[in-house]
Amino acid sequence: MHARSAHRSLLVIGSVALDDIDGPSGMKRDLLGGSASFIARAASYFTKNVSVVAVIGADFDQKHVDELAACGVDVSGIVREPGETFHWVGKYSDDLTSRETLDTRLGVFATFAPKLSAAQSGAQIVMLGNIDPALQLDVLRQLEKPALVAADTMNLWINIKRAELVAMLGKIHTIMINDEEARLLTGEHNLARAAKGVLALGPSSVIIKRGDAGALLFNADGAFAAPAMPLSDVVDPTGAGDSFAGGLMGYLAYAGDLSPKTIRTAMIVGSVMGSFAVEKFSVDGLRDLDGAKVQARFDAMAELVRFDKLAL
Amino acid sequence: MHARSAHRSLLVIGSVALDDIDGPSGMKRDLLGGSASFIARAASYFTKNVSVVAVIGADFDQKHVDELAACGVDVSGIVREPGETFHWVGKYSDDLTSRETLDTRLGVFATFAPKLSAAQSGAQIVMLGNIDPALQLDVLRQLEKPALVAADTMNLWINIKRAELVAMLGKIHTIMINDEEARLLTGEHNLARAAKGVLALGPSSVIIKRGDAGALLFNADGAFAAPAMPLSDVVDPTGAGDSFAGGLMGYLAYAGDLSPKTIRTAMIVGSVMGSFAVEKFSVDGLRDLDGAKVQARFDAMAELVRFDKLAL
Repeated sequence: MHARSAHRSLLVIGSVALDDIDGPSGMKRDLLGGSASFIARAASYFTKNVSVVAVIGADFDQKHVDELAACGVDVSGIVREPGETFHWVGKYSDDLTSRETLDTRLGVFATFAPKLSAAQSGAQIVMLGNIDPALQLDVLRQLEKPALVAADTMNLWINIKRAELVAMLGKIHTIMINDEEARLLTGEHNLARAAKGVLALGPSSVIIKRGDAGALLFNADGAFAAPAMPLSDVVDPTGAGDSFAGGLMGYLAYAGDLSPKTIRTAMIVGSVMGSFAVEKFSVDGLRDLDGAKVQARFDAMAELVRFDKLAL
Repeated sequence: MHARSAHRSLLVIGSVALDDIDGPSGMKRDLLGGSASFIARAASYFTKNVSVVAVIGADFDQKHVDELAACGVDVSGIVREPGETFHWVGKYSDDLTSRETLDTRLGVFATFAPKLSAAQSGAQIVMLGNIDPALQLDVLRQLEKPALVAADTMNLWINIKRAELVAMLGKIHTIMINDEEARLLTGEHNLARAAKGVLALGPSSVIIKRGDAGALLFNADGAFAAPAMPLSDVVDPTGAGDSFAGGLMGYLAYAGDLSPKTIRTAMIVGSVMGSFAVEKFSVDGLRDLDGAKVQARFDAMAELVRFDKLAL
């Protein structure tokens, strides 16, 4: 993917974490996780103008930071603090369709207060990973004039920080949530109605992530459905949504425009990166990709939904 | 939709039923239901060469039969027997995503033994609606040399008539089942693996219906994903899968060929007809359609998944 002068800067705010994941293939400990880890890595395939703001603890292996830097990501905003790195312990059901949180140790993440550098404040495209909406609001206040801010959230914040979440939604362009979160946020089960309810809270676009049923984009242009690749070997769904976000936002930064047409392509790129992520643990599915592999899966996705016009 | 000499004959075997449906909009009684009712009606928009084999009881209102005949369907194979029409009583959850059967009164359906006329035995395209696989096998024995036989089934037959079902699968071209049925049949949760498991039982194509997540086709050509239209007003999901099957098979009969390209278009036509069906009770959503309305929704479906090629 060649350099292009139109590239825009992408700022990623989120968590960098260590995950212990129990599932059908046994317990895996201290896996690199966290929203920013997946977002930045997925985005790095499309633009080298990616900067991360996150916090890590004293126990965090520097090799992960160095590896992200080797992908061309500006890691100067990944701050190391005394204490433990954010640690998530989860267990997946045997069919990988549901998971429960066994333990969450916030560690240094408990006092995370993102501080943007002057360059970061001028970012053109911003992805607010799933963190406390009060922190997302704090980041929004530090931004100068971004062309696009997208955010993720989760059921926890919908339940306990609804006011802050709603305030945040009033200040961003795109919210990415999963189907259950959209339902929880709006009280509407029907996804088209839930999407309308979310849009009424402020954002101009809502992206509803549906796992292996793909993702739906709703905005003033109507609806767009990005398929998910039917994969035979799904190993670990952790980070799928963040890899989707990273691919999407990274491609937008690369393309340098935010036209409806480019956004559709970006949704598919997101679905491509999500499909790679779930094939391995941690960010392993995002390792060793290149333009040809991304292009090949994008083309497979196009073939998956290709059909001719109807002529009755 | 104009007459075309290439039209092939479509034979539909299934149930004609009366449904009592309880759901968010209250209890509705004696609604026209049954797989054949939806399949034939949906197919009738594409070809007038549709013939139905089914059984009705003494209580069945002749107006329903006359209405199907007025759609151009050959109803001479809908036989009236002494006794009660097959009656299904079901209750949907408030969000319409799950349903339970409260009562099933088989009535005349208990002794249904489909007998094909000479013309019906020569049918080129055959849709075996969800009935006892032993009966589906009996129909298969009466067919001469159909170009395409597709069948539906349900969890009940997978559980209690697996041997007959597997025998039936060995003799048809296409099986249409929902995701849960594919999992139950194969013991594989992953849909790509479940599809592979179903194909190993004999059919050359498997179509996995996923409700508002669309439908997946798997065969030797790979996979095809038909989206579902994100609808704001879903009233009654009953018959969605049968309307999908009717649109798909009716379009194939109309198109007169079974090329991979035509089958993809037919999947979308099926999705279009399913989307109309769920907007009203019974077959009401399939009333008063015309070529322009079908074309418009097909075009909306194409727009829903339209995206450009990627150029990195």
